[in-house]
Amino acid sequence: MIDKGLAEMKLPAQPARLYEPIRYILQIGGKRIRPMLVLLAADIYGEDRVEEALPAALAIELFHNFTLMHDDIMDEAPLRRGMPTVHEKWDTDVAILSGDNLLVLAYQQLANVGPEHIHSLLFVFNRMAQEVCEGQQWDMEFEQLEMITQDSYLDMIRLKTAVLLGSALKIGAIIGGASDRDAKCLYEFGTAIGVAFQLQDDILDLYGDPKRFGKQVGGDILANKKTILLINAYAHADERQKRELLEWQGFDGARSPHRSEQKIQAVKQIYEALRVQEAAAKLKEEYVAHAFSCLDKMSVGPDKLQKLRLLAQSLLTRNS
Amino acid sequence: MIDKGLAEMKLPAQPARLYEPIRYILQIGGKRIRPMLVLLAADIYGEDRVEEALPAALAIELFHNFTLMHDDIMDEAPLRRGMPTVHEKWDTDVAILSGDNLLVLAYQQLANVGPEHIHSLLFVFNRMAQEVCEGQQWDMEFEQLEMITQDSYLDMIRLKTAVLLGSALKIGAIIGGASDRDAKCLYEFGTAIGVAFQLQDDILDLYGDPKRFGKQVGGDILANKKTILLINAYAHADERQKRELLEWQGFDGARSPHRSEQKIQAVKQIYEALRVQEAAAKLKEEYVAHAFSCLDKMSVGPDKLQKLRLLAQSLLTRNS
Repeated sequence: MIDKGLAEMKLPAQPARLYEPIRYILQIGGKRIRPMLVLLAADIYGEDRVEEALPAALAIELFHNFTLMHDDIMDEAPLRRGMPTVHEKWDTDVAILSGDNLLVLAYQQLANVGPEHIHSLLFVFNRMAQEVCEGQQWDMEFEQLEMITQDSYLDMIRLKTAVLLGSALKIGAIIGGASDRDAKCLYEFGTAIGVAFQLQDDILDLYGDPKRFGKQVGGDILANKKTILLINAYAHADERQKRELLEWQGFDGARSPHRSEQKIQAVKQIYEALRVQEAAAKLKEEYVAHAFSCLDKMSVGPDKLQKLRLLAQSLLTRNS
Repeated sequence: MIDKGLAEMKLPAQPARLYEPIRYILQIGGKRIRPMLVLLAADIYGEDRVEEALPAALAIELFHNFTLMHDDIMDEAPLRRGMPTVHEKWDTDVAILSGDNLLVLAYQQLANVGPEHIHSLLFVFNRMAQEVCEGQQWDMEFEQLEMITQDSYLDMIRLKTAVLLGSALKIGAIIGGASDRDAKCLYEFGTAIGVAFQLQDDILDLYGDPKRFGKQVGGDILANKKTILLINAYAHADERQKRELLEWQGFDGARSPHRSEQKIQAVKQIYEALRVQEAAAKLKEEYVAHAFSCLDKMSVGPDKLQKLRLLAQSLLTRNS
């Protein structure tokens, strides 16, 4: 439904350099998890609501791709899903303007939902969009700092990635006709799942199955990314370990595969001494437990939530 | 009302690098013509509608500033209203993300209008926003071409700048409770005024009073800007004149004030031989006449349109 809906959006042919990048980023795919959450939430309140929720699901996917296009510029990312990013394939101006247009197209889709719910949908969508901008800004600012606290990190990933999942569910719920209480529970569920998913991503980067993971194991360590592992290690390191972590952060391993592997192993050893993998996994499980406890507070029978539970579980149990 | 409304928007303090650029660009001013058009259109249908239209007026002003922030990146403009542009004062990433956030804030203000009109307002606003993106893309693409037709140019400035004026009026009219016909007339009026204003801008760049104009006379010639004057000259030039125009376009005068002045005078002489100022002024007057003819088709008495006429006339009779 989602891919069909995206394909059926009637984008103009001209100006080509405005619309081709939009077709390109939408067509290189992704798992469409966020729009699926919109549809699954609407489905809780009746199968017939799914069709009605489709424009909002497309709006969420367009918004997500808008953030990818602009974030890739700011992160100077050369690749996205194994393909050249828009600013690489075209140029930065094209990526700025096509991204802007994607955001406008997202609002256009949202406006297709119908007058009944548009006001509350806009409220949820606007707040989410603002928070995602804030999250991206915090992420960029944190890169400039030597270290950040776990609380700052959790708040940043909540804003940058998790509220989009929570809002996708809330939007589907509103269109489905959910009570305020149910809509709030689903928002909380989605946001907690989103944080848990990001924590899992941090863990898998170092501890995932390399054969299935499809990217370099330890890539976050090499890029000095402030993951939950590094933040946790830094918080519990003694003076010697702290010095060693900082020294490795100062090392740019891009030019020496041997030294890069040394860096990964050295940092990993500190992680193991401080048992940060276990701490991160525990934190993730706390978010997962909180997420599912939100579902228990809802007014609908557990059978209605089965598909949503399954999707969340499949997201949270991959080991690669 | 508009400046007060902008000042009263409660922008968060943090992250500072996200919200400070927004405060900055809003505070360096501008004439607030676009939001004024929203309020004037609402006022036609009752003074009490003006207050109700304020959030939409703010939305239009926020959108306008979003386009300025992103256009300035693409145009590599160092100054805006005599002050450093956001990407110069901060950096490009900040200008991208603060601009994105400004667009979201515009939609937030629009959603404050109230449920009654939101659906049709969104429709007008979304279409306008998409067209403005298209106009900016055409503008950038035209820069890469040797020459463009007058029709292409008129269509580009309609999209890039004029539909914002038309939509501002239409949005105010909808909130005022105008008939579809009146709303359409006001849109057409505003769009035609917008095109006329841009044509006037092209003329004044070379023929305006330098003492009052506040920028270098002939700046467009030096920058090889494809104004209505150059397009018209090129369309009517003989082979020799065409060759001379192209030769001067190949000359980068930035380093020699003397040669720059020579370039302006040489091009101006061709303009005068081909009477392009007169042709451009005539074209502008055609748009002005069409604009005012739209007002005559409206269902309201001429007294109701007095303020709007005055604003439009003041915009179209400045000689600097």
